Amino acid sequence: MAGVAGVSTATAGRVLGGYGKVSETSRRKVEEAAQRLGYRANGLARSLIQGSTETIGVIVTDVGNSFFASAVRAIADEVRAAGYEMLLANTDADPQTEQRALRMMWEKRVDGVIIAPQGSGSVGHLRPLVDDGLPIVLLDRPLATLPEVDQVIINNTSCARSAVNHLIELGHRHIAVISEAAHDFPRLRSVTLAGGDAERPSAARLVGYLAALRRAGIDADEDLVVHSPYNRAAAERAVLGLLRRRPEVTAIFCTDNVLTSGAVAAIQRSGRRCPDDLSVIGFDDQDWTTLVRPQLTVVRQPRYELGSAAAHRLLQRIEERRSAPNNRSRAENTASGDAPKIQEAQRLVLRGRLIKRASTGPIPPG
Amino acid sequence: MAGVAGVSTATAGRVLGGYGKVSETSRRKVEEAAQRLGYRANGLARSLIQGSTETIGVIVTDVGNSFFASAVRAIADEVRAAGYEMLLANTDADPQTEQRALRMMWEKRVDGVIIAPQGSGSVGHLRPLVDDGLPIVLLDRPLATLPEVDQVIINNTSCARSAVNHLIELGHRHIAVISEAAHDFPRLRSVTLAGGDAERPSAARLVGYLAALRRAGIDADEDLVVHSPYNRAAAERAVLGLLRRRPEVTAIFCTDNVLTSGAVAAIQRSGRRCPDDLSVIGFDDQDWTTLVRPQLTVVRQPRYELGSAAAHRLLQRIEERRSAPNNRSRAENTASGDAPKIQEAQRLVLRGRLIKRASTGPIPPG
Repeated sequence: MAGVAGVSTATAGRVLGGYGKVSETSRRKVEEAAQRLGYRANGLARSLIQGSTETIGVIVTDVGNSFFASAVRAIADEVRAAGYEMLLANTDADPQTEQRALRMMWEKRVDGVIIAPQGSGSVGHLRPLVDDGLPIVLLDRPLATLPEVDQVIINNTSCARSAVNHLIELGHRHIAVISEAAHDFPRLRSVTLAGGDAERPSAARLVGYLAALRRAGIDADEDLVVHSPYNRAAAERAVLGLLRRRPEVTAIFCTDNVLTSGAVAAIQRSGRRCPDDLSVIGFDDQDWTTLVRPQLTVVRQPRYELGSAAAHRLLQRIEERRSAPNNRSRAENTASGDAPKIQEAQRLVLRGRLIKRASTGPIPPG
Repeated sequence: MAGVAGVSTATAGRVLGGYGKVSETSRRKVEEAAQRLGYRANGLARSLIQGSTETIGVIVTDVGNSFFASAVRAIADEVRAAGYEMLLANTDADPQTEQRALRMMWEKRVDGVIIAPQGSGSVGHLRPLVDDGLPIVLLDRPLATLPEVDQVIINNTSCARSAVNHLIELGHRHIAVISEAAHDFPRLRSVTLAGGDAERPSAARLVGYLAALRRAGIDADEDLVVHSPYNRAAAERAVLGLLRRRPEVTAIFCTDNVLTSGAVAAIQRSGRRCPDDLSVIGFDDQDWTTLVRPQLTVVRQPRYELGSAAAHRLLQRIEERRSAPNNRSRAENTASGDAPKIQEAQRLVLRGRLIKRASTGPIPPG
């Protein structure tokens, strides 16, 4: 290789190994020779040479969930069109798993990461990557503690408020909500409508529910804020328990696709007629919502578009970083006193909407 | 780095760049120095040193489809537990996209690939990778032309036969099938039951349908073998067309989850009562099959287990290859006359089963 390139072996090594100083001319010679020799089309060596792996990392809760499956599919389409590949990891909402996945992607030198981060608490594991200038886009879940990072989310608070408004307009007053964030009820009571979308989706939707009740002058009843983990059987049990405990409930708002499945199953088992006895609104317009009877009123989320937008944003960031002087990180830019070349963080909010179907009806007489 | 290791820069370059000859002692010295210096925890350089990226490639038709979403999730779980990461690509059943994805993964030096390959025709793009010894496992789709490659599939032919047998036992004689492989009907007529599982899933299921009819002495009617692409709206139109054209049909067997959604939607629109007028069997036990009324009789596929088994097999192959002398490829083993160290190809067939629910009933009187 060195012979073909007309440079010393040490120089060839430095170029191919991607370390040490080497003149631009020598680098070009070695790269050309490498190309001429085929160099076994070694993507790894090329990545070391170019400083880019043309790979992004995607970290979601569970690609087996139809919401994330659709968003991940969109990300894959978008990045493939730009010549990038995708490393995928699931976290099951476990912070340690998320941390490991991030570290691994960092070690594999991904050019950027799209992540649906867990918790609103510690971002200790994200901070060093952000400071080092790794392009990151938050998918579906904002992080108030990382305001300098791009986020692509859905207007969950407004969507939830519209859904509950629809129930109120139909005359319902005893409206239950099934939510993974129920334990956060005391804190979320005091979150304003405007502040809702800074919360994670389940909390944001609960804020929307509370805002709709407040506006209608209905006191929120903590007992009607039913907790369930993201598990259909658990949601079914929770809703059956609610209907036994509080028979006056005439409407249920579900804040997630898995919880929706469980609630629909529970209503079917309860023997209550929908919507004559009980109205229900689901979240996320899954394939089956028009196959069940009555067809389900839902909040439709633009899940594919969410993934596309996140990928689009990430690719822009990667491009910006590449064209920035010396690929310097934010920390370096700040330390050297230069004006940062990186644009301000962007917060993109996509709009979901309420699709009214047959599972919501007027409050039963009597 | 070279200084710390006590070797020449050229040697360090050869080790870190992964090219040229270098003594075992020098390699160890450089690797130790690299480790001592942190070497920026560069996964790429480490991959070049170790000859392993600890990454596998996964190529499926569409991760947005719940079947593949579940299998991919299983693969991710299995490989993560073994310390591997996953590059994911979708092909939309397009051979060129599949070819590009494979080439890219090869260039990125994945340690192995799990692929749901398209078509039964050309395997020109897979052949060089197989010959080079890259561990590959076929997921869900066998390839008769690559008998030396491991495959993990489902007993589609038997499952389909059981489903159609169930309809025959209920008295049905005019049984339609909706299938993506309908155009292959003339050829598949002559495929034996035993040969069915060498076909791709949609064709294997059609073979099972034909076998059940044959055993019952019912002549297969090509007009009842309805073609639809993997698209719910198209399947709905196809089934509505069938019911208008052939009103004597009393049962429909669907060969795929998307086709099942379309068929259920069509039956609901047709005004025919299920199962009183028309029985239906779906394929793949999706979340919603117990939420529709009547609850759907389906063939349940072990999709998560399919992904797990494929990943497990691939990891075994990667381990075998790593411990084989000089990591030699099959071609090299054969050329040098040595007995290949690689085990025989394995064909793992997981069993689906028929779940009888309320959408199948006796043939309507009259």
